[in-house]
Amino acid sequence: MINIGILGLGTVGSGIIRIFNENSELIKKRIGDKINVKKVLVRDLHKNRDVEIDKNLLTTNPDDVLQDPEIDIVVEVIGGINPALDFVLKAIENKKHVVTANKEMMAKEGWEILTLARKKGVDVYYEASVAGGIPIIRPMKESLTANKIEEILGIINGTTNYILTKMAKEGKEYEDALREAQNLGYAEADPTSDVEGYDARYKLAILATLAFGTKVNVMDIYTEGITRVTKTDIKYAEELGYAIKLLAIGRQRKDGLELRVHPAFIEKNHPLAQVNDVFNGIFIKGNAIGEIMLYGRGAGQMPTASAVVADIIDIIRNIKAGTVNRVVSEYDDYIPVIDMNSIVSRYYIRIRVKDKPGVMASIAKVFGDHGVSLQSIIQKDTKGEEAEIVLFTHDIVEKSISDALVEVRLIPTVIKVESVIREIR
Amino acid sequence: MINIGILGLGTVGSGIIRIFNENSELIKKRIGDKINVKKVLVRDLHKNRDVEIDKNLLTTNPDDVLQDPEIDIVVEVIGGINPALDFVLKAIENKKHVVTANKEMMAKEGWEILTLARKKGVDVYYEASVAGGIPIIRPMKESLTANKIEEILGIINGTTNYILTKMAKEGKEYEDALREAQNLGYAEADPTSDVEGYDARYKLAILATLAFGTKVNVMDIYTEGITRVTKTDIKYAEELGYAIKLLAIGRQRKDGLELRVHPAFIEKNHPLAQVNDVFNGIFIKGNAIGEIMLYGRGAGQMPTASAVVADIIDIIRNIKAGTVNRVVSEYDDYIPVIDMNSIVSRYYIRIRVKDKPGVMASIAKVFGDHGVSLQSIIQKDTKGEEAEIVLFTHDIVEKSISDALVEVRLIPTVIKVESVIREIR
Repeated sequence: MINIGILGLGTVGSGIIRIFNENSELIKKRIGDKINVKKVLVRDLHKNRDVEIDKNLLTTNPDDVLQDPEIDIVVEVIGGINPALDFVLKAIENKKHVVTANKEMMAKEGWEILTLARKKGVDVYYEASVAGGIPIIRPMKESLTANKIEEILGIINGTTNYILTKMAKEGKEYEDALREAQNLGYAEADPTSDVEGYDARYKLAILATLAFGTKVNVMDIYTEGITRVTKTDIKYAEELGYAIKLLAIGRQRKDGLELRVHPAFIEKNHPLAQVNDVFNGIFIKGNAIGEIMLYGRGAGQMPTASAVVADIIDIIRNIKAGTVNRVVSEYDDYIPVIDMNSIVSRYYIRIRVKDKPGVMASIAKVFGDHGVSLQSIIQKDTKGEEAEIVLFTHDIVEKSISDALVEVRLIPTVIKVESVIREIR
Repeated sequence: MINIGILGLGTVGSGIIRIFNENSELIKKRIGDKINVKKVLVRDLHKNRDVEIDKNLLTTNPDDVLQDPEIDIVVEVIGGINPALDFVLKAIENKKHVVTANKEMMAKEGWEILTLARKKGVDVYYEASVAGGIPIIRPMKESLTANKIEEILGIINGTTNYILTKMAKEGKEYEDALREAQNLGYAEADPTSDVEGYDARYKLAILATLAFGTKVNVMDIYTEGITRVTKTDIKYAEELGYAIKLLAIGRQRKDGLELRVHPAFIEKNHPLAQVNDVFNGIFIKGNAIGEIMLYGRGAGQMPTASAVVADIIDIIRNIKAGTVNRVVSEYDDYIPVIDMNSIVSRYYIRIRVKDKPGVMASIAKVFGDHGVSLQSIIQKDTKGEEAEIVLFTHDIVEKSISDALVEVRLIPTVIKVESVIREIR
């Protein structure tokens, strides 16, 4: 019998207990042993729980989990840095294996955690930290090892994907779609971390570390959220044969890594363009495997708990096989991250202008002066004295677009540059 | 340094060598050791190879691989049962770990092979046997272990998916699409194994064993190929909001397993309906994880070799960690396979009739007598004296459809029951 201790009995913690309650026979058959939840750290002993659990297992004292010599595996499902990081480090110091679902902690402190774990001879698994139930960490560490990974494109935030899907399919504006997501529990009361792309940034940092074998500083990842995407942009995207998705992008180039999170135009026949609602999809290119995509529910109680329990089972298999640190995934390399100014893509640009003769010519001249050539131009009258110009460029370096837009904004007939969205292909 | 021996230097064997040639530094970094290809069994020493390989490594004597005490891992990429099975068993007897890409062997003899391997204390890995490079065996064995798997739906034969895609997108007839697939090397000169569904059957047997924890006899899997699917059926499918795909279906029911391979109607917004060309997709439902799909190239030299090399790396990690049989995946259970007569689905039925009054009434009466209720009816005049009737039923047990169709065929105004295709949802 293997004893585990769980830190946290929120949504994911309760999901873990539910899995043990419902699938215990099956799991016992798969590993030839019983998993025993010995202690669960909670904040409030008397709170009503929506899962069947023996109240005697609950404790408010972290040491009941972290210091119990009979507990082999500590499961951290509190989230955030404090106090989760302290608990995890203490568990490792006490030679306990750790399973965590904590993306922020793994993105920011993963290096230190994994290095300490290796030193102490324990395993730290974190499948649930990225894309919920979708197998992605383990495939990266074990299934794609024959490949040089060239690219990762991920829809790895379910909240923003839900919002963008609602905007696209039902013509909702951003605020209305956000409110709907909040009402359904898909977005939090303060949605900042999701809609500003921070959540996706943490996950990309974790994936890029594994894919490219490098340390990643989360602050090096250019991050732009979806708050400025409008239903008008989505409509134009559709006209042009695209969907707009919040993408996490990791690319290996000769001179370094492209790491960025931003809304992007992606062609409708790309498999990621079909990933809708709260679903996640991670598209990976390797130099042997070609293209694969892993698709599923990137969040939610049971999918996330599914990943946590799979990690617990994996560690139990290690324990029973008498092995530890079988797969090592921290590297000493540091591959530089490329400056956003030097990335190349096609750009969608929407500009509100005064409906005067010559406005298009002035804009086109500025772009031409900066070497930006235009693939398509749509001009529509909106109100009486205003018009809307939508440009779609050929491949061009970001710096030229930024420079051109500074000048475009100075043209007297230009009212506002409404949107600038990169294409990904 | 780990020595491996390879049996076979065909497409996949050459792909493995190519990966070692191209990604050796990367692999060395990942596992902290060098992989040395010590011997490669070939049929012809003097044949020109399209991959760079030292001719001194080649041998025509299997014992140079199977009996060499310095070889730790034997890689079998010959395919088929003879002589591959003999070689694999001999390798295991000689305490060598085995990596194989052989679906037929693993589907038919996997049980015996894995049991012997366990007895002898070696590992046998076979990720490449199903869906080429797509990680599926390892996710089944390690990532989904917290779940009761309820359903697998797979597009796991690239050849037939290519043919059906061409029929759908370019309105080609089956024979023309097959010929095109043959010209492109996607289909063999004798395409039987692909187009009759046998290849998919092997793969389903392997997946079902892992998913449901049971022995599977391949002959228990109902199998129907795509040779009778016409472009007319595909057109009607589209009218009704469906795609037609060759699906491998595994479902856990209270009374046993549904295991079947056949062309099926699948709704256009289902993720599998978007899996086109030679791509594969495997859709899995688990009671915790919900729905996931794994998508990628299900065949081809490099994707398949990618999976083989990942298995080699996994075994090397086991060797270096001093562990073996860490994950066991053979079970002693035998879950019965449910008779096709008892499955329930909706059916698409296309009937050619004489364009006479009362023909629809006679057909409808027969279906009504057998409890089959119709969801939609399309009747079209085709030629002067003939008409085409397309029926789409509500859920009904297969037995009732078969019985009804026996009687429908006896109606004098019925010329031919052209197609009967099950829906999957």
